[in-house]
Amino acid sequence: MTKVLIDCDPGIDDALALALVAGSPSLELVGLTTVSGNVDLELTTANALALREFLELGEVPVTPGSAGALLRGTARTGHVHGASGLGDAVLPAPERGPSPGYAVDFIVEALRAAPGEITLVAVGPLTNLALAVRKEPRVVEWARELVIMGGTYTRGNRDPAAEFNMLADPEAAAIVFDAGWTVRMLGLDVTLTAVVTSDVLDRMRPLGRLADRLLVPAVRSYGEVTAAGGPAVHDACAVAYVLDPSLFTCVPAVVKVETAGLYTRGMTVTDFDLRDRRANALVATALDVRGFWRLVLGAYEGLAARLG
Amino acid sequence: MTKVLIDCDPGIDDALALALVAGSPSLELVGLTTVSGNVDLELTTANALALREFLELGEVPVTPGSAGALLRGTARTGHVHGASGLGDAVLPAPERGPSPGYAVDFIVEALRAAPGEITLVAVGPLTNLALAVRKEPRVVEWARELVIMGGTYTRGNRDPAAEFNMLADPEAAAIVFDAGWTVRMLGLDVTLTAVVTSDVLDRMRPLGRLADRLLVPAVRSYGEVTAAGGPAVHDACAVAYVLDPSLFTCVPAVVKVETAGLYTRGMTVTDFDLRDRRANALVATALDVRGFWRLVLGAYEGLAARLG
Amino acid sequence: MTKVLIDCDPGIDDALALALVAGSPSLELVGLTTVSGNVDLELTTANALALREFLELGEVPVTPGSAGALLRGTARTGHVHGASGLGDAVLPAPERGPSPGYAVDFIVEALRAAPGEITLVAVGPLTNLALAVRKEPRVVEWARELVIMGGTYTRGNRDPAAEFNMLADPEAAAIVFDAGWTVRMLGLDVTLTAVVTSDVLDRMRPLGRLADRLLVPAVRSYGEVTAAGGPAVHDACAVAYVLDPSLFTCVPAVVKVETAGLYTRGMTVTDFDLRDRRANALVATALDVRGFWRLVLGAYEGLAARLG
Amino acid sequence: MTKVLIDCDPGIDDALALALVAGSPSLELVGLTTVSGNVDLELTTANALALREFLELGEVPVTPGSAGALLRGTARTGHVHGASGLGDAVLPAPERGPSPGYAVDFIVEALRAAPGEITLVAVGPLTNLALAVRKEPRVVEWARELVIMGGTYTRGNRDPAAEFNMLADPEAAAIVFDAGWTVRMLGLDVTLTAVVTSDVLDRMRPLGRLADRLLVPAVRSYGEVTAAGGPAVHDACAVAYVLDPSLFTCVPAVVKVETAGLYTRGMTVTDFDLRDRRANALVATALDVRGFWRLVLGAYEGLAARLG
Repeated sequence: MTKVLIDCDPGIDDALALALVAGSPSLELVGLTTVSGNVDLELTTANALALREFLELGEVPVTPGSAGALLRGTARTGHVHGASGLGDAVLPAPERGPSPGYAVDFIVEALRAAPGEITLVAVGPLTNLALAVRKEPRVVEWARELVIMGGTYTRGNRDPAAEFNMLADPEAAAIVFDAGWTVRMLGLDVTLTAVVTSDVLDRMRPLGRLADRLLVPAVRSYGEVTAAGGPAVHDACAVAYVLDPSLFTCVPAVVKVETAGLYTRGMTVTDFDLRDRRANALVATALDVRGFWRLVLGAYEGLAARLG
Repeated sequence: MTKVLIDCDPGIDDALALALVAGSPSLELVGLTTVSGNVDLELTTANALALREFLELGEVPVTPGSAGALLRGTARTGHVHGASGLGDAVLPAPERGPSPGYAVDFIVEALRAAPGEITLVAVGPLTNLALAVRKEPRVVEWARELVIMGGTYTRGNRDPAAEFNMLADPEAAAIVFDAGWTVRMLGLDVTLTAVVTSDVLDRMRPLGRLADRLLVPAVRSYGEVTAAGGPAVHDACAVAYVLDPSLFTCVPAVVKVETAGLYTRGMTVTDFDLRDRRANALVATALDVRGFWRLVLGAYEGLAARLG
Repeated sequence: MTKVLIDCDPGIDDALALALVAGSPSLELVGLTTVSGNVDLELTTANALALREFLELGEVPVTPGSAGALLRGTARTGHVHGASGLGDAVLPAPERGPSPGYAVDFIVEALRAAPGEITLVAVGPLTNLALAVRKEPRVVEWARELVIMGGTYTRGNRDPAAEFNMLADPEAAAIVFDAGWTVRMLGLDVTLTAVVTSDVLDRMRPLGRLADRLLVPAVRSYGEVTAAGGPAVHDACAVAYVLDPSLFTCVPAVVKVETAGLYTRGMTVTDFDLRDRRANALVATALDVRGFWRLVLGAYEGLAARLG
Repeated sequence: MTKVLIDCDPGIDDALALALVAGSPSLELVGLTTVSGNVDLELTTANALALREFLELGEVPVTPGSAGALLRGTARTGHVHGASGLGDAVLPAPERGPSPGYAVDFIVEALRAAPGEITLVAVGPLTNLALAVRKEPRVVEWARELVIMGGTYTRGNRDPAAEFNMLADPEAAAIVFDAGWTVRMLGLDVTLTAVVTSDVLDRMRPLGRLADRLLVPAVRSYGEVTAAGGPAVHDACAVAYVLDPSLFTCVPAVVKVETAGLYTRGMTVTDFDLRDRRANALVATALDVRGFWRLVLGAYEGLAARLG
């Protein structure tokens, strides 16, 4: 069993990532924390609560965190996730509310209580993690591993230079990359290859309630699905990495997050030439796409059987 | 009674400011939080603990906070406060240790528990306050007032553009100034007029243990004292403002903290021409120096009588 | 005889500076070059041409230069000099046009032809001078001295941090200050003390055509004149410095021009603490105002006698 | 006949580009201007002079330009071109020297004299061109076309973000891209596909003196040649584009050059999503490599026949 704590901003692909967690018996989810990103904090928290119940994630606490970026405090939203953040998927209203605390405190305490055991998975802007590092620098030692969906070493998606999660909070990302751990960075370079083609969608369709209520409407509202391509399930890559790192080719690098540029804020400037510097990241450069979908669809099938 | 929570980095002038608190019966000190600044966090906390006992501040909690700047995490120290941070003053070793919590949490909870009652006084780098604002944006409403020693609208002290506390954490200062409250900014423009001349020092000398153990050695190690000038007691100005704002001339302004310059990081760019913008600061432009010392020395005399 | 080459953007105070040149027999004006600044290049050139004839400056060439800033190319204008750039002063239309060349080439060739002889006086944005330095780095050795009106070591005028000429082209100013010479910097710190009070204006009034057509209408449209204060004749300070440097207190400094700040572009960050660095500027910190006006009004009287 | 003016910093690949010019009867070379870049200005000029004679380029003037970057003035060199700038190629010492003028003036006057006729080809840092634009903004209209080797829309070569020519003078590049024309940008994205493989080298070897003295030693010192890859002849791509644009796939884009980043100075931030903005660049995204070498080797063969 691998303990994971997921910091997220659901978000369609966050939902698909959480479904992968729910369908993976080898993962023990110790907490969900939320951050504004794809939609506002209120909605990402509401979506996390709805997903907890719909996916039958049990008693795992859902704890809200940062409503805006570290330095500028502004909200930022992605527009591609629809007004609710889950596209056309409409989940039953959740019965239980969030935990009373604050995501940053939750992260610190969870890691303090189980040093070396918990893998942090961050699939939204890194505000909560940056604040956790500043509150308690030892989280860097206590975390078993940090896996993020974010960044790019080639081109961005929100602008030519930056990936959305990094652009949403460049200073937070800079803090997290400079904190002393080795960030597993699953960026656009690989996540854009993890796309839902019509073949994949055909495999999802029969999955009962999971498909009807979540997978199919979410995917379809997220982008056009064809035989050759479709929407990328970015965040699911981060969970897949935890489940099976061998699906990814990873290369050590020094990653610096630009905070000062006129046109390059949030860019993850990735130098594979380490010279005599310590790598602060393992950067994914390739994904075994076929293996990825085998893993994901297998998990979804298991989950669907459970959910009915 | 005015409730005050003091965020500090003692520091010689922090010590003189706390002595002013201790000698002012109209102030109720609800907490001391510490931050790295004049010296490292361990020393600023140790000094706060020593001062709590030496100044007989009672059961007020001392809670340590940030060990470095928000974005860069680096320690930064002033070099003018000696190795210990209190110059040549040597206080008895404290018997009690710090509170178990974290300064940022303490600030948030103290303000939450008494909305509208507590005046925040920050006399070090603003890291803790910035993190409090990000953890709980309502601290801005809950605080009765925020008074800082920091900044300048003319020239800096650590470099030509910036005052030490702002330069030590420009991003934190930017967050605090942009948070929505009206910062009372007591900058170098006025604090450099609050100097210990030989006349002032002569008034301090007879004050028994307070003078012998703290005031005189601290002041003397802090700068040369002459008839015409001497070291500035920057931080004491912030407490004096709380006790008697009429000592200061204050002007509304829009203050932006520079975070991007090559030579101007940490500069408090102060625009007195509001045009149609809301002022985010009341900036002190003049100090009634005579009245200031009347207030401070009066408080020190009362405290000395108590301390023996 | 001191040879001077004046790079200017007339501009009311430029006009007053040129009148000072015209009334100073010890100066030999070898050229006027123009730059956009107070108004657009076409107008600054037209005004320079009109002033050449009105002030009877003789055959001195007027050569137009840069129409915008070095990096961004945008025009920038001061708005305080009226639509024409000379306020309410209306001079006779000039009969002769500008020289065919380009200011940058003219500056380089003038200095090359008389190394060590010519004092450069720049009273507008430094675009032309920066380009001259880049075209021919030896201008730095060939110039007898460089005197500029520009900058500030305390507060700006166009915004809180920067003086207008520097803000109008920060990159050019950075090039000029870093070029290797010792810039004589007459900034707002002193030029704001060189004001036309009602006493000064009373001395100007009787000066015939010079007063009626230029001095009085220009000054009055430039700002309110009272017994205690009035508009500052910034640019005339630079010419006065050439005539009598002893009017100014000057202090060696390292001046860096900020090009990267969010709020501080164009700021002349002035460090009087040289440590082991070579001073790149002599910065004026005080002006003998009485002596200044004695010099200026004396020159104006001589000129008025000549102009009739 | 297409008139071309080449601004260069030879440099090995500059030499190979000039050999392509020399072997292309459809090109009329109207001037060579030099800039510091691959090596210092003195060497780039010396190499241009040597190449003019060795390649029998005739009476074309060689005019030296900028010795350093626009803003910072510093020299910058590439280290991959050997001490001389031409690797192991040793050309006969030239008999004639450079023209007396200045590259910037030469460019302006050449374009003024033949508006609409001359294609500018810039294969080094863009300092000279930026200065030409500032001296005479109409060069933008007068140039038939501007073709540059420089930039990248994916990853850099000198650092992760920037290509060498752009990094060598980011401000100059920003001026050139913002000047109003449509820059033909042949960046690393395509030039790195124009590599000398062992097949290509085998085609060069028999080319007599051209091969023995220039092509073969230059290429071999520039990088390892294998069947699958070898050194890229970046600059030759720019000349090839002039000769046959159909070899390249080009896409309109808005390119902004970063001047302010901590890690991204000189990056050509390339946005293919124009929205309602005018494209300021046509960016090459693919090269017909086989067609390229057919063109280049054909020209080299013709040249070799002439040179003997």
